Amino acid sequence: MSSKTRFEPRDPDYRDKVAKSFALQTVMNTMGINLNSVRAGEVELSMDHRDAYTQQHGFIHAGVTATALDSACAYAAFSLMAPEAAVLTVEFKTTLITPADGERFIYRGRVLKPGKTLTYTEGSAWAVQGDQETLVATMTATIMALYGRSHLRL
Amino acid sequence: MSSKTRFEPRDPDYRDKVAKSFALQTVMNTMGINLNSVRAGEVELSMDHRDAYTQQHGFIHAGVTATALDSACAYAAFSLMAPEAAVLTVEFKTTLITPADGERFIYRGRVLKPGKTLTYTEGSAWAVQGDQETLVATMTATIMALYGRSHLRL
Amino acid sequence: MSSKTRFEPRDPDYRDKVAKSFALQTVMNTMGINLNSVRAGEVELSMDHRDAYTQQHGFIHAGVTATALDSACAYAAFSLMAPEAAVLTVEFKTTLITPADGERFIYRGRVLKPGKTLTYTEGSAWAVQGDQETLVATMTATIMALYGRSHLRL
Amino acid sequence: MSSKTRFEPRDPDYRDKVAKSFALQTVMNTMGINLNSVRAGEVELSMDHRDAYTQQHGFIHAGVTATALDSACAYAAFSLMAPEAAVLTVEFKTTLITPADGERFIYRGRVLKPGKTLTYTEGSAWAVQGDQETLVATMTATIMALYGRSHLRL
Repeated sequence: MSSKTRFEPRDPDYRDKVAKSFALQTVMNTMGINLNSVRAGEVELSMDHRDAYTQQHGFIHAGVTATALDSACAYAAFSLMAPEAAVLTVEFKTTLITPADGERFIYRGRVLKPGKTLTYTEGSAWAVQGDQETLVATMTATIMALYGRSHLRL
Repeated sequence: MSSKTRFEPRDPDYRDKVAKSFALQTVMNTMGINLNSVRAGEVELSMDHRDAYTQQHGFIHAGVTATALDSACAYAAFSLMAPEAAVLTVEFKTTLITPADGERFIYRGRVLKPGKTLTYTEGSAWAVQGDQETLVATMTATIMALYGRSHLRL
Repeated sequence: MSSKTRFEPRDPDYRDKVAKSFALQTVMNTMGINLNSVRAGEVELSMDHRDAYTQQHGFIHAGVTATALDSACAYAAFSLMAPEAAVLTVEFKTTLITPADGERFIYRGRVLKPGKTLTYTEGSAWAVQGDQETLVATMTATIMALYGRSHLRL
Repeated sequence: MSSKTRFEPRDPDYRDKVAKSFALQTVMNTMGINLNSVRAGEVELSMDHRDAYTQQHGFIHAGVTATALDSACAYAAFSLMAPEAAVLTVEFKTTLITPADGERFIYRGRVLKPGKTLTYTEGSAWAVQGDQETLVATMTATIMALYGRSHLRL
């Protein structure tokens, strides 16, 4: 799925906009998920391992991985949206390739194809142990732009 | 998708087993997700609204909904597995039908078809406001039984 | 996922509209897939087993099952759309519960939630052998209404 | 999702094995889908546009795209399986990025992570018009190896 297109952001302040909306996602702060970088159509997040978010075998719960991947994908899409659009996830599929066992995790979301209404994205989650990165999970997500709903912030 | 089959549990202590494994999922306790009920092939969880787990518009984050649905589906599958099996999620797809806006949420997982290795499940998330339940999200999940891995508890 | 809502069609001629669009899907005729019934938000298709559409073990290929399920879901959505809308599938996930082994197959699509732009649907495929129906596959599909594109028929 | 690992096939005759199984998929011949190339963990198929497989707007039906992508992904997985394994698709998700409008289509499947039982794959479908390739659809698919079922050929 490697269409190496460069995307043109419709909002010159897209980095700011993404950072502001990310800061409003209380869940990111609660879980200790950080915004590492924003480029046009690409977002990277990271999280240190935290026992509070593990499943019964001591690995990070698949849903927590999905939470970070969904935000990475949605903000990758949001970075290419017009200034007046709010962002909402339509659906995502997460494949759990291997248990999320690591000191730290990196979550990458990127746009496959932007659109006025729907943006198609994919993401990958990586476990970091020492200097090694292991693919933990993948996501494909459909993200929607909403217009004219002033009660939806960013 | 309504195959109203009754399933025969292979483990007479399936309720206990599910409750024990659920109690080991630290993330459930962290997020305030409760185990409401366990039947053979069916599990119900619930969570009160908590601001700590919201996205930028004040709704529960899609990934948190997916976390609860994944556990509901995985434990529905686990309830039908042999006593010596451990449980792991292979993949899930979550569709976000409407924003997760409610006082409380109910998550239902049920088995469509059990199997020695793979069990197919589906789940639904409902927002409760007063006495009204609204369908918030659906999930389909493939759940795997693992045998002979003594380091994986339950 | 059983929200037993009755849906109100926005197009009084929805049966006709679905039948006309279905007749334009050349692939349905090529594969021998029939339109059994149309209700508001529900469509049923069927196909006899045909060796021409089998995979290496002699079962109907998963993609052929997906073809019928996608049309069942998309037309279930289309039945609730406004007269001026054209219909397009955004994405679907298909779970292959058991090999598609039967004399005949039934495909049921139904709407979970209709919307102006996006409609959420689910479908199920059943193998018929004598008087027994076996669940073969499930689908969840996101369907889109397109407006103002006169080159897209129905 | 770019883990550029080289995979070691467990079957030295993997090309032959894939070609033989592909030849047994009657549906591939029926639809005019060709096996272009097989490498360890990667398969490419192609199909010329055929009116017989179109939907109501004259584009190739999403299910036909899914049929080719599923075979590309399943055979990418099969190329890495042990000689005694048969192959079956567990589930796939297909995202329809843009209508399948072209003279010819290319379908690429590749393995993200092989396994004894489950292999995780992804695929992409491309429309070819003149010398231009456009991304039409993506797939993620879970593929299963079956052992000891002598009635399942290849």
